[in-house]
Amino acid sequence: MMKTPYFLSLETCGEGEQKQLAATLDNLTFNASGLIPVVTQDQRTGKVLMLAWMNREAIEKSLASGDMTYWSRSRQAYWRKGESSGHVQRLKGMWADCDGDALLCLVEQTGPPCHTGRSTCFYLHMDHDQSTVTVTESPTRY
Amino acid sequence: MMKTPYFLSLETCGEGEQKQLAATLDNLTFNASGLIPVVTQDQRTGKVLMLAWMNREAIEKSLASGDMTYWSRSRQAYWRKGESSGHVQRLKGMWADCDGDALLCLVEQTGPPCHTGRSTCFYLHMDHDQSTVTVTESPTRY
Repeated sequence: MMKTPYFLSLETCGEGEQKQLAATLDNLTFNASGLIPVVTQDQRTGKVLMLAWMNREAIEKSLASGDMTYWSRSRQAYWRKGESSGHVQRLKGMWADCDGDALLCLVEQTGPPCHTGRSTCFYLHMDHDQSTVTVTESPTRY
Repeated sequence: MMKTPYFLSLETCGEGEQKQLAATLDNLTFNASGLIPVVTQDQRTGKVLMLAWMNREAIEKSLASGDMTYWSRSRQAYWRKGESSGHVQRLKGMWADCDGDALLCLVEQTGPPCHTGRSTCFYLHMDHDQSTVTVTESPTRY
């Protein structure tokens, strides 16, 4: 994506330098529906669990409550992960990327993150030298 | 996202079951610009390196060549990662998620993945109980 002046200005910041959270949120790039993609990763195992979406308020809800709260595009409603299943995600760390159009969240996952009961939503492996896809989860430990 | 009948039908597949790659690609959900978000993860360390986008042809190019090839939204062109910097990504595994609207790629990364020289694009940490953002990279090992 086109880099905004704000995120360009952060590129040369040194390790540990601090900025205001509100200014960073103001300068994130949301899509036409007001959403930003969020990668959710298990903080213990490093496994990538899912990709979902947040609007600005969902980011603020997640930061304030520590409960991962997405925007459900199918239901057009806030979606506190685990609100019906009990499979909650406690937010342990949130990062924005270099051009401010994606988030990474490290979480403590209770139960399976995927509605199919699998330990990741990424379970369809597309083999690069075959014409097949195999049902098997992405790896857990690194 | 709304689940497609195809991806719904995969939910009950057993471990190791195989499907045709072409049918899976046909049933992925691309956005209005024909793109799908791709999470790129270091296969050795588990570090999430970046989030970028592919169209169907970029997926096929990446699978066929083994060189991660994205669609650059700012340049509106294919973007073989490292084509100018030499910081290539060799594709080691590609997964689609349960509703077919996101991809996860495990890669072998040469050099830094981020154009700022950092070892991940996710280097702006948004602290959940402060009003600050700190310049510091997401973790490397799990």
